[in-house]
Amino acid sequence: MNSSMIRYLLGSVLKIEGVLLLLPCLVSLCYQERVGLIYLLVAAVCLILGIAMTVKKPEDTVFYLKEGCVTTALSWIFMSFFGALPFWLSKEIPSLTDALFETVSGFTTTGASILENVEVLSHTALFWRSFTHWIGGMGVLVFLLAIISLSGGSHINLLRAESPGPSVGKLVPKMKHTARILYLIYLGMTLLEVVLLLAGKMPLFDALTTSFGTAGTGGFGIRADSIGGYSSYIQWVVTIFMIAFGVNFNAYYFVLFHNMKKALRMEEVRCYLAIIVGAIGILLFDTVKIYGNFSDALRHSAFQVGSIITTTGFSTGDFDLWSQTSKTVLVLLMFIGACAGSTGGGIKVSRFIILIKTIFKELNSYIHPRSIKKITFDDRPVEHEVMRSTNVYFITFVILFTASVLAVSFEGWDLTTNFTAVAATINNIGPGLELVGPSRNFGFFSPFSKFVLIFDMLAGRLELFPLLILFHPAIWTELHAHKSALKRLKARRSGKDGETKNKTLRRK
Amino acid sequence: MNSSMIRYLLGSVLKIEGVLLLLPCLVSLCYQERVGLIYLLVAAVCLILGIAMTVKKPEDTVFYLKEGCVTTALSWIFMSFFGALPFWLSKEIPSLTDALFETVSGFTTTGASILENVEVLSHTALFWRSFTHWIGGMGVLVFLLAIISLSGGSHINLLRAESPGPSVGKLVPKMKHTARILYLIYLGMTLLEVVLLLAGKMPLFDALTTSFGTAGTGGFGIRADSIGGYSSYIQWVVTIFMIAFGVNFNAYYFVLFHNMKKALRMEEVRCYLAIIVGAIGILLFDTVKIYGNFSDALRHSAFQVGSIITTTGFSTGDFDLWSQTSKTVLVLLMFIGACAGSTGGGIKVSRFIILIKTIFKELNSYIHPRSIKKITFDDRPVEHEVMRSTNVYFITFVILFTASVLAVSFEGWDLTTNFTAVAATINNIGPGLELVGPSRNFGFFSPFSKFVLIFDMLAGRLELFPLLILFHPAIWTELHAHKSALKRLKARRSGKDGETKNKTLRRK
Repeated sequence: MNSSMIRYLLGSVLKIEGVLLLLPCLVSLCYQERVGLIYLLVAAVCLILGIAMTVKKPEDTVFYLKEGCVTTALSWIFMSFFGALPFWLSKEIPSLTDALFETVSGFTTTGASILENVEVLSHTALFWRSFTHWIGGMGVLVFLLAIISLSGGSHINLLRAESPGPSVGKLVPKMKHTARILYLIYLGMTLLEVVLLLAGKMPLFDALTTSFGTAGTGGFGIRADSIGGYSSYIQWVVTIFMIAFGVNFNAYYFVLFHNMKKALRMEEVRCYLAIIVGAIGILLFDTVKIYGNFSDALRHSAFQVGSIITTTGFSTGDFDLWSQTSKTVLVLLMFIGACAGSTGGGIKVSRFIILIKTIFKELNSYIHPRSIKKITFDDRPVEHEVMRSTNVYFITFVILFTASVLAVSFEGWDLTTNFTAVAATINNIGPGLELVGPSRNFGFFSPFSKFVLIFDMLAGRLELFPLLILFHPAIWTELHAHKSALKRLKARRSGKDGETKNKTLRRK
Repeated sequence: MNSSMIRYLLGSVLKIEGVLLLLPCLVSLCYQERVGLIYLLVAAVCLILGIAMTVKKPEDTVFYLKEGCVTTALSWIFMSFFGALPFWLSKEIPSLTDALFETVSGFTTTGASILENVEVLSHTALFWRSFTHWIGGMGVLVFLLAIISLSGGSHINLLRAESPGPSVGKLVPKMKHTARILYLIYLGMTLLEVVLLLAGKMPLFDALTTSFGTAGTGGFGIRADSIGGYSSYIQWVVTIFMIAFGVNFNAYYFVLFHNMKKALRMEEVRCYLAIIVGAIGILLFDTVKIYGNFSDALRHSAFQVGSIITTTGFSTGDFDLWSQTSKTVLVLLMFIGACAGSTGGGIKVSRFIILIKTIFKELNSYIHPRSIKKITFDDRPVEHEVMRSTNVYFITFVILFTASVLAVSFEGWDLTTNFTAVAATINNIGPGLELVGPSRNFGFFSPFSKFVLIFDMLAGRLELFPLLILFHPAIWTELHAHKSALKRLKARRSGKDGETKNKTLRRK
């Protein structure tokens, strides 16, 4: 295990976080809030620590998938810890566990909150809270890849660990350029949303924070009623952008580089849009009865379907009051999630396509046992390795999910609360049903349950294995082994140098 | 597709059912209930139909897995339909859908009932209802295999379709003998339970029906309070036998033929017993508070754990009133299920062992990408095909499960009811939580939901694919194609015969 490279990358991540923490300081200047000083302090700590960790460049730059996973998992844990400090030090969130929950929920673009009333927070805190969504949405390591150069296969091993979806491809031959293109599309779309929201007479602060929440498919609102209090125009803009940020970003790359047909032929995107249309259809039946007219019902249904399938978690009304059918549809959408290669969470549409094709293949194998038809995706055969890892991913997901529900159940809340609390965190959505419904919060859980849910949020965002691998004893023994091997190597080298010197001396 | 073989086997199954229906007729004689005449009538219909279908022996006896699946699925549908007729014709269950639900629930050893009060049923009906558990427990096709001789690989293809678990092995070289040994162990254990229950002063009728329900891990009781009204001794006997019938029957074979060590080394059995002990431990914490003393708490906990993990579904108290933790543990046990090769349902312990080993293998592959360590089970490497089919099974299970919850949700009951109603039927358990809790029944569901649950019960008992394959269009076109191919063959033969005759005539 290359521990010096891991140290170096963690340091770089801390430096980035230090710089990003200066943004809420600017906000505090605008609103003349003294709390900004605390953000400045934490920024300074991050920068100093980061610089200290990156002073010595690693000698050995060889970097495998396991190092990619460990770096990613530790980066997210570090980022969350330092990101939570301002909330805790400013006493805006008095408990460290709660501050950590809120920050992890932000970075992982979950949007589940422990706050009773967000409206009492300072503008600085609200801004940082929403901005964590934007950072977490595309991923901080993807950002790192866009600005620093790494040797050989190290890039793809980092990207594989942080990017969502069953397989990772480069858009252009150079990884650095791929990461830059992704961030440019991300930034461009966010700015477009800000402009459109401003056009709807939304205040700049609201437009910025709402756009961060939409872009990262996060879901932290700055008002108690989330997006419910804004105009229909604003709600429609948010709906469309939520759905847009749940699309595989490759589609936008194809559109930008005049390959519209290729974008339209993407199986995952077509399936994703079909599911959205279908779900809105089912919900309409129900919401028409509640809202009395078609246009309101359509707006609320479209908003909620877009919010849940992309795992954003904004709400325009309390969907926990809708009928059981609608709620069941929403719970199912929670698990399906957005497209791979988007900022959304969940199991991902492409995984479901592969899983369902696997089932049909199995049925066919009963009828034609000797046929060896391969599963295709986007007209290309799916590699055996992708299928296998998709299956294992799904199984691990279900087992981790049930273990979490069991762990949370020790507190004694009802099954629907426990079930949807875990579903809403592991899929990075935000609100669930019953006690964790859109008009409630996660504050009532015990610290133990909160840590289970924090774990689930991170596991969901990093797609399980990069986080689970931290619990493998071999990782820690290897980290240790690498250090002592380096020491031995150095000792031998200096020893050899010594010997050669001795030899030359003797010859003389 | 060999349709004449399918017809022949279906006919044989009907003949067996006809004979078995004579048993409740005997019961009606003992209790002088006129309803017995209806059972006699249905028995006659089954026998006549069965004989008509088996008069012509199939010319072509080649039999593949697809025929095995189709035969098994159709057998279970036929059996359930004819088994439901007496309930409906006697008006003891006035609705045909309800009668079908009750019978499918019986044959699939689910034990979910639509009856408000079972105590008003005639002895004849109660006997038939419990006896369906006993028939379904070991499987009617396994019974068929024990009495008729089939050619070549046909046996194993039938057994693979009906027997639970990821892989099927023969105990002895001859399939017929394996099936006989299984049924003898099954019969012997059932008789032993009857004797022990009689020793506890249980009336013969109660002892027989309770033993049928235990042996098949079914769960239909003949009293409104299930087993709650009987003595502690009887409850303990039932507990031990429930757990015993959930053990892989291979273990008993090993014990009987003096290979105790091999039985004790079976990974699945050890794991199964460990889960039981662990679950009882968790439940004890809870039930001690409810029942006030340790011995009652232990008895109720052990009974409920045994009842749920083996998917029997008997109850000694209303566990829906227990704490959330206990209920969550019970819901998890519902999915784990019993051992493969037992009469119990659920996903099966061996599948979970393979799934969890798969996850560890995946984690290892991140750390040592080039290692090719195989997963072992009972100290032997697991074949790739078994692992793959286990993965696909699990995925299909989860997707069918969620689709069913969605379908049932259209009725508007709460999520816990819908979720546990589907869990209790697809895993062949019986009672769920909330509206389908142990003191309630499934009668309130609409016919649509009842058919969804009937489908789930059959899919759960037959382990998905044998039933799902019926929905594959290729099956029906092949059935048709086979018939016309046979006709063409016959026509060509008679034509050839004609030609040869002509030739000989000309020569003359």
